[in-house]
Amino acid sequence: MKVLVIYSHQNPKSFSNEILNVVVSEFKEKGHEVNVRDLYAIGFDPVLKGADFEKLFAGTVSDDVKIEQDYIRNADLLVFIHPIWWASMGAVMKGYIDRVFSMGFAYKYTAQGPEGLLKGKKAFLINNMGSPVEFYEKIGMINAFKLTLDQGIFGFCGIDVVEHIFNGGVPSASEEQKKQYLEAIKTSISRISNG
Amino acid sequence: MKVLVIYSHQNPKSFSNEILNVVVSEFKEKGHEVNVRDLYAIGFDPVLKGADFEKLFAGTVSDDVKIEQDYIRNADLLVFIHPIWWASMGAVMKGYIDRVFSMGFAYKYTAQGPEGLLKGKKAFLINNMGSPVEFYEKIGMINAFKLTLDQGIFGFCGIDVVEHIFNGGVPSASEEQKKQYLEAIKTSISRISNG
Repeated sequence: MKVLVIYSHQNPKSFSNEILNVVVSEFKEKGHEVNVRDLYAIGFDPVLKGADFEKLFAGTVSDDVKIEQDYIRNADLLVFIHPIWWASMGAVMKGYIDRVFSMGFAYKYTAQGPEGLLKGKKAFLINNMGSPVEFYEKIGMINAFKLTLDQGIFGFCGIDVVEHIFNGGVPSASEEQKKQYLEAIKTSISRISNG
Repeated sequence: MKVLVIYSHQNPKSFSNEILNVVVSEFKEKGHEVNVRDLYAIGFDPVLKGADFEKLFAGTVSDDVKIEQDYIRNADLLVFIHPIWWASMGAVMKGYIDRVFSMGFAYKYTAQGPEGLLKGKKAFLINNMGSPVEFYEKIGMINAFKLTLDQGIFGFCGIDVVEHIFNGGVPSASEEQKKQYLEAIKTSISRISNG
């Protein structure tokens, strides 16, 4: 498989970064090709501008968007690693979606309604968050995350979200808890890797 | 009332911009003080950086964030106008939340859990979107928007969302339909204005 990891976190010492390292080494160990787009490190511009729309209407895209779209075109599996901030993605990852998942690339409109153009690709989502998963589950928020992310973004483009991991209570998690989170990610990678 | 309008759209000719103009003139006509923060126009930087966290831990905030927080401190009612892109806010508005609604300003952690620090303030949310509202309602997405936005962001900070308007099918809406949307907004403003 060709694996593309899209990663967004401002702190290289974060637990998200530990997860990134485990994801990359595990997929490589299993013989897959792995590319990483570290959005903070490359300084990805998240602001969808009038210029982006002008290019879209002219049938083209901005150069920095083109680079990201080529990475996606070339990938079988997209791994998105980012924390949940304010019940969603942070602005950098959100802007990546706003700009890179453009009309004509990620979806198109037909007489029958919108049609996803990234069919055949799979996604694996890993989200760290501050509160415990149980807290979010009780108020229906985990379901809301799945609706707005898995379905509202990836499903809309025809991408099949094969696993979506939520790690709760990360800022206060013990080393043992973090180890368990990493083990669960490795198990998911084995499962995804085996088809 | 002191009304603060936080607006995010890249196109000055958009229907969102028409809504902005109506909101400002209606509130002014009713004798309220109105300030507008047009996030694209002021070039608001939506990227939450390591430097923001360093300042946070030092008990301060970045200069551009301080300006926005002062506007919020001074307001009784916050009006958020932005389109729904990919089942959420676009990156510019999301980055405004990520950076401006900082810990110590918008919320704090206590022994009893998180506590909102913006209690007493009200919010009025206006979102344009591409698909019809009925379509989103059927799949539970409107409820997911309310959970992730009204509750996940504003409720978390103690802000009372008094009205949340979703205008569906905006790109293909007739002039008559748009007129109805604007009338409904005026009705909401009267209601909010009367307490």
